Amino acid sequence: MDYRIEKDTMGEVKVPSDKYWGAQTERSRNNFKIGPAGSMPLDIVYGFAYLKKAAAYTNHELGVLSEEKRDLIAQVCDEILEGKHDSQFPLVIWQTGSGTQSNMNVNEVIANRAHELSGKKIGEGEKTITPNDDVNKSQSSNDTFPTGMHIGAYKKIVEVTIPGVEQLRNTLDSKAKAFKAVVKIGRTHLMDATPLTLGQEFSGYVAQLDHGLKALRNTLDHLSELALGGTAVGTGLNTPKGYDVLVAKYISDFTGLPFKTAANKFEALASHDAIVESHGALKQLAVSLNKIANDIRMMASGPRSGIGEIIIPANEPGSSIMPGKVNPTQCEAMTMVCAQVMGNDVAISVGGTQGHYELNVFKPVMAANILQSAQLLGDACVSFDENCASGIEPNHEVIKKLLNNSLMLVTALNTKIGYYKAAEIANTAHQNGTTLREEAINLGYVTAEEYDSWVKPEDMVGGLK
Amino acid sequence: MDYRIEKDTMGEVKVPSDKYWGAQTERSRNNFKIGPAGSMPLDIVYGFAYLKKAAAYTNHELGVLSEEKRDLIAQVCDEILEGKHDSQFPLVIWQTGSGTQSNMNVNEVIANRAHELSGKKIGEGEKTITPNDDVNKSQSSNDTFPTGMHIGAYKKIVEVTIPGVEQLRNTLDSKAKAFKAVVKIGRTHLMDATPLTLGQEFSGYVAQLDHGLKALRNTLDHLSELALGGTAVGTGLNTPKGYDVLVAKYISDFTGLPFKTAANKFEALASHDAIVESHGALKQLAVSLNKIANDIRMMASGPRSGIGEIIIPANEPGSSIMPGKVNPTQCEAMTMVCAQVMGNDVAISVGGTQGHYELNVFKPVMAANILQSAQLLGDACVSFDENCASGIEPNHEVIKKLLNNSLMLVTALNTKIGYYKAAEIANTAHQNGTTLREEAINLGYVTAEEYDSWVKPEDMVGGLK
Amino acid sequence: MDYRIEKDTMGEVKVPSDKYWGAQTERSRNNFKIGPAGSMPLDIVYGFAYLKKAAAYTNHELGVLSEEKRDLIAQVCDEILEGKHDSQFPLVIWQTGSGTQSNMNVNEVIANRAHELSGKKIGEGEKTITPNDDVNKSQSSNDTFPTGMHIGAYKKIVEVTIPGVEQLRNTLDSKAKAFKAVVKIGRTHLMDATPLTLGQEFSGYVAQLDHGLKALRNTLDHLSELALGGTAVGTGLNTPKGYDVLVAKYISDFTGLPFKTAANKFEALASHDAIVESHGALKQLAVSLNKIANDIRMMASGPRSGIGEIIIPANEPGSSIMPGKVNPTQCEAMTMVCAQVMGNDVAISVGGTQGHYELNVFKPVMAANILQSAQLLGDACVSFDENCASGIEPNHEVIKKLLNNSLMLVTALNTKIGYYKAAEIANTAHQNGTTLREEAINLGYVTAEEYDSWVKPEDMVGGLK
Amino acid sequence: MDYRIEKDTMGEVKVPSDKYWGAQTERSRNNFKIGPAGSMPLDIVYGFAYLKKAAAYTNHELGVLSEEKRDLIAQVCDEILEGKHDSQFPLVIWQTGSGTQSNMNVNEVIANRAHELSGKKIGEGEKTITPNDDVNKSQSSNDTFPTGMHIGAYKKIVEVTIPGVEQLRNTLDSKAKAFKAVVKIGRTHLMDATPLTLGQEFSGYVAQLDHGLKALRNTLDHLSELALGGTAVGTGLNTPKGYDVLVAKYISDFTGLPFKTAANKFEALASHDAIVESHGALKQLAVSLNKIANDIRMMASGPRSGIGEIIIPANEPGSSIMPGKVNPTQCEAMTMVCAQVMGNDVAISVGGTQGHYELNVFKPVMAANILQSAQLLGDACVSFDENCASGIEPNHEVIKKLLNNSLMLVTALNTKIGYYKAAEIANTAHQNGTTLREEAINLGYVTAEEYDSWVKPEDMVGGLK
Repeated sequence: MDYRIEKDTMGEVKVPSDKYWGAQTERSRNNFKIGPAGSMPLDIVYGFAYLKKAAAYTNHELGVLSEEKRDLIAQVCDEILEGKHDSQFPLVIWQTGSGTQSNMNVNEVIANRAHELSGKKIGEGEKTITPNDDVNKSQSSNDTFPTGMHIGAYKKIVEVTIPGVEQLRNTLDSKAKAFKAVVKIGRTHLMDATPLTLGQEFSGYVAQLDHGLKALRNTLDHLSELALGGTAVGTGLNTPKGYDVLVAKYISDFTGLPFKTAANKFEALASHDAIVESHGALKQLAVSLNKIANDIRMMASGPRSGIGEIIIPANEPGSSIMPGKVNPTQCEAMTMVCAQVMGNDVAISVGGTQGHYELNVFKPVMAANILQSAQLLGDACVSFDENCASGIEPNHEVIKKLLNNSLMLVTALNTKIGYYKAAEIANTAHQNGTTLREEAINLGYVTAEEYDSWVKPEDMVGGLK
Repeated sequence: MDYRIEKDTMGEVKVPSDKYWGAQTERSRNNFKIGPAGSMPLDIVYGFAYLKKAAAYTNHELGVLSEEKRDLIAQVCDEILEGKHDSQFPLVIWQTGSGTQSNMNVNEVIANRAHELSGKKIGEGEKTITPNDDVNKSQSSNDTFPTGMHIGAYKKIVEVTIPGVEQLRNTLDSKAKAFKAVVKIGRTHLMDATPLTLGQEFSGYVAQLDHGLKALRNTLDHLSELALGGTAVGTGLNTPKGYDVLVAKYISDFTGLPFKTAANKFEALASHDAIVESHGALKQLAVSLNKIANDIRMMASGPRSGIGEIIIPANEPGSSIMPGKVNPTQCEAMTMVCAQVMGNDVAISVGGTQGHYELNVFKPVMAANILQSAQLLGDACVSFDENCASGIEPNHEVIKKLLNNSLMLVTALNTKIGYYKAAEIANTAHQNGTTLREEAINLGYVTAEEYDSWVKPEDMVGGLK
Repeated sequence: MDYRIEKDTMGEVKVPSDKYWGAQTERSRNNFKIGPAGSMPLDIVYGFAYLKKAAAYTNHELGVLSEEKRDLIAQVCDEILEGKHDSQFPLVIWQTGSGTQSNMNVNEVIANRAHELSGKKIGEGEKTITPNDDVNKSQSSNDTFPTGMHIGAYKKIVEVTIPGVEQLRNTLDSKAKAFKAVVKIGRTHLMDATPLTLGQEFSGYVAQLDHGLKALRNTLDHLSELALGGTAVGTGLNTPKGYDVLVAKYISDFTGLPFKTAANKFEALASHDAIVESHGALKQLAVSLNKIANDIRMMASGPRSGIGEIIIPANEPGSSIMPGKVNPTQCEAMTMVCAQVMGNDVAISVGGTQGHYELNVFKPVMAANILQSAQLLGDACVSFDENCASGIEPNHEVIKKLLNNSLMLVTALNTKIGYYKAAEIANTAHQNGTTLREEAINLGYVTAEEYDSWVKPEDMVGGLK
Repeated sequence: MDYRIEKDTMGEVKVPSDKYWGAQTERSRNNFKIGPAGSMPLDIVYGFAYLKKAAAYTNHELGVLSEEKRDLIAQVCDEILEGKHDSQFPLVIWQTGSGTQSNMNVNEVIANRAHELSGKKIGEGEKTITPNDDVNKSQSSNDTFPTGMHIGAYKKIVEVTIPGVEQLRNTLDSKAKAFKAVVKIGRTHLMDATPLTLGQEFSGYVAQLDHGLKALRNTLDHLSELALGGTAVGTGLNTPKGYDVLVAKYISDFTGLPFKTAANKFEALASHDAIVESHGALKQLAVSLNKIANDIRMMASGPRSGIGEIIIPANEPGSSIMPGKVNPTQCEAMTMVCAQVMGNDVAISVGGTQGHYELNVFKPVMAANILQSAQLLGDACVSFDENCASGIEPNHEVIKKLLNNSLMLVTALNTKIGYYKAAEIANTAHQNGTTLREEAINLGYVTAEEYDSWVKPEDMVGGLK
């Protein structure tokens, strides 16, 4: 492989000649061979691209960066955001906990690419743009990384998680309405209970997701606070007056999202409670989705020896010889995602507890985990919606059979023939393995007509209205 | 021991004659010998007392319970809330997951005590009030337990957690103001960094708690939703029209808290995402408090061979022979509480995922964990505040020494003598173990007067303003 | 209340006159009002009683404590172990993280009670035995608390957890044998699969518990290591030669358990990986028990509209009017315990990570959590065994019906009539809602006799042997 | 892109023509667009390659597969293990929870590549080898995936984790020996305590890792059990007699690792407690490593205003202007890995609890998490060793200064001049900010010679020997 020489304050480093990155990136590559290369999420890199561009604009507007440099920096940032340089970010999550090396990776790539854009050859001539003095001007790793992390997480949540959950929520809501007249047996403790409608069951899922979405949105205000402007320890040393507010405004403009400067920069560098907060809401959604997916696979179980009240789409061969063996694979993918999100929540909380003095140095692991959770939940909801939820249909025959077989319907006779006779009917049916209807008539307590007019499950599901 | 005979639908049971509870409570005592007796939190029992009284009032107002019964039930509920019957609730958390047996414990105690209040002897004569038909009227375990759980958790959060956290927050805020001029060395990666004020450091703690309190309050709306009125499966079977709204209003009146009926009763029985949500915010507070307590004990470490920048109160003998060995015991209690809350969060999330069909049967474990976390966090904040935070004082001498010794102040010379000379000064001081001031003068780059007028840490802490 | 005055190095403290504890205990009571009083587990206190007695014997044998003092200390320790002084230990878990105050609580109670045993009145005359110089001789909180913690946890595991799990394991094993000929439908993905026997299913549970017990026993060697003899920082300062080995021998003698001195005292004070290790095995058992309890409640679900393949004992009224509604309450208690243990594992791991330098100061929270988990798991297994597992019976009728209804049996015809005809039979039965037998005969591919002799589920369950 | 048509029992699917995979892989690609493509770890694929080859050999030996087919299958498996087909496995973790689709992915790739190896063109002519009948013969997803998972995890642990931890352990051990005479101040509660040697401190780390390695090795026996031979539900339906033992023997031969057939196949399919068990030990190592890395960064903190007792290598620029700002970046990477492993442990435990009946369908998420933890811990130990631990040196000057400054040394005077005079010396020094030596002489209690001969920290560190 071809190399060129790059330098930093510690001396010279050989860097692959086809790469834009510089000495500090290369050192990190060599010093942190932990897990697969390039594990630092690109969402963080893109978050950096927004903030580097915003910083360049702010620095220019406040008189500390030339227009030419601003435009060169901005041009490379735009290229990064277009995905043109994805292979230029080889670093791993498991580097310095401030993410300094990823900040430098971005600075170095921008500087070298800008050098090229200005018509020069990398490694030749004086640098048009320097990574530290120009690209990183008025910044520190300590305020840029949390800013990139908030931009990345916020965008992921509003662009992937929320739309994904909403899509599934809307499908479940339409199912709740479609199934509003499908009376079925209720189950508590997994045991037969009084009836409800399938629509009511699904309305509970919708209510769960509505609460989860609200809880997630409640966290966005904290997540919209940006550390940028705090520089090394939160005091904003080496920033021009007004920088923090203005740079947040530029980021807000460039992303189209309501970012703002953090009211307290010391909190914004030394703790990442905003990540803890937002991930707490993602974890709540995982808890809800786990319940929903579990219910659906239990209700779809069978085809003969399970519950079988609903039919879910067959998306792949279940068993080559057994018709009707439709494995609830989307439920399985979803609940695996939920397990991961529950684990990620612990990783994030542990990281969140361990800020020391002016800096929390668990930034990359916190960033990677929230981004993974936000992506997986959103994707899993879309996958679950399109390949499972939207195709759910009641198995009316089974639902009716299980409902009518049930002994719980006897409660409808209480007010007609009294508690003791009703209980006797149920007991007899239980012992004989017969239906309530048969025994009610056999015992002579009701006529067939009376039974049919009194025992109407559909009258037992509307107490709330 | 003396016994009397109590009956339920399964037959007779011997119950200690000095106890108000009945057959079902006694069965549970015998069937669930798991951990210490009486572990079900009294807060849940009190939550039940509020709701049983509210149900009695509602049932009377809606015409299904006599005034006399209403008043007897209400009188016992008031006695329970006064703490007169605490020894009547011997059941454990580890019972049926719907909490049915604790619901019956409350029903039985109310019925027998009411029998007594009406002038009769327990076990003699027809029951004035029956546990199922009167006390439990228009209710089910499935909607009462989550209601009692929400009442208990909501009260604990607003009466213990929030006031406790606020008390500590206010002390830290007054310290932030008191220490606003105390310039000290900053630390990132645990390493010396540019200066800030001790007040700025504390302002970060205040910001953390403010965000945490806001996040906790954001969850209260969900927690204020009550399941009562859903009865067995959420349909409200066997409740009079208007019952759910009215009973929530009575609970709101009796507790003075803004409870309301859950918009969707199916969600309220089958999932406990509201508990997951509120505990997520408690866990976030634990994350914040852990950071704060850690910082304080590190800054107080010493007396000679640690950091020693602050002095914390000596509340107990540290070492009999070593003066100044003031162990940060309140920090230790606080961080242990935080570890517990982080564990409890997992227990609650696991429980939350496992609702099945119409019921979540992890109610008692979820209730016990949120109540413990809410109590411990509130208590620990008060203890930490009164026995530690309120007595924190800066050790001005140490702070000044560590600040002036620091090599980071050299950055103040950059704009005066240029980066390279500044770096040379720092390098020389580092190698010689001397101060910047000494070497700056020795090297002839600045005079003593220049040094003192240029290197002013207090000018390095205000970039943000 | 009556008080007497007790003193420590910080001065005088008023102590309730009917209590044996002294100044330092009283200070802790006042300084740590966090959660309910007396939460420090008595198992820890008893662990201390063993070690204080052993230390007295060792100190005497090594010539640094008189025989009289040894015997007085030992006598009080024996009284404590008989449970005579349980009310003398009012401190909470949430105290200093070294447990110093509970160590002093024990020291003070022993000293004052010994004073009394020697015929004097507490608070009068010179102390016969002093808490620090006599009871705590050759010790430090830093080595006593972890020793008490290991004694308490080890005893709990071998006296409660292992016997409890073994009791349940043995019942499940006898069920596996009893049910070895009960052929039933298998289920994968919750969907119908090829048959197995109910005994085989239960044998899987037994294998899980056997592996879990082995894993737990694997951890006991580490847990048997005692820190005692390390004193303040692990160097053993102020201990007589040979003390650490001898004191461990005495503890081993007094408890009848194979305790030994820790090979490395620095590890034993500064980290509590032995607790992390043992609790990891408890958590594994929780994972296994959760699976078992879940399976059992699903198989027992019904009575009409669930799976209903097994019958579990009815221990309490499920529904007053619905016969056969036997709620799986023991499964619910068990799975709630499992959720708690999973949470406790996180609390312990978080505590375990946070040792600093020569001491881990999360000792009490780690001790409390492992003791709770060990107790709950053992108790829950006994409760589950006695009130559920031992009474499990197959519902042969349902099992046979679900088996014969199943379409999976068609695989038995593959080798007789070929894959395609077999599949046609299954498809036709699936579409018509009929049985394989009906359609196989209808389609003319087999005779009734052939079907009955070829499709034998009992021939499909023994491939492994 | 070019496509060819592949078929399965559901019909035709278009597959990219340059790929070996078939219809079922392609369906999964389309149905599970959750997170980045190809997230299923290659270690699982390689585990499959071993088992497919072993199954082919076993099937041939037991007379159900031709030699030609055996050799073709084995040849492709070898190619896979050489890494030649890494791009042929595009599926994600978040698929069906049995991993069926990844099993089919392997089956399809082997079949098509074998077709090619036999001189034909993919998609043309009759298949030389069929995915289901040949490659998957005597297998099911339900027993292959857990087998591949155990092979992958076992190999990763013995090839990456254990060697990595051992490498670090050995370095720490050599440091413990090298530093055995470096007496330093001890710290408990972060406060100054009695002295010990730096070597003793490091010996504690070694003991932690030794215990952790032992715990991890204890789990390998369970992990060495292979499910293969259980087929769909654990009964071994459709396997030739003796298959399970023989196939495990082949796997053992091919991998050179002591794999064996699982004693109970029902446990091996329906639960993954072996993964829970091994990951529990990985988590314990994370707990230990977190403590070690934390200690090292605290001891290395400074250079001026921290503890500064040790010097760690400078691997990258810390601060361009501040000499001596050597950020503990390897400690940060390590503790971030530990946080991740703690989170992964929860994901695995949650997955482990949720087996249902004959199958646990959280296999892929459990596999991915244990593989990540095992890789990260091993890599992080090597990185930490090479870039940090091996270069640690004591800062003798600082160590000596902090030791001699300390007031704890006064305990050495107790036996010479009595407790009260010793305490007076310490108190005076504390108040005056002077040294013990100065005040001891000033107060006239000892001469300078006496002080120097009596107060020898090196005599205070050896109590244990």
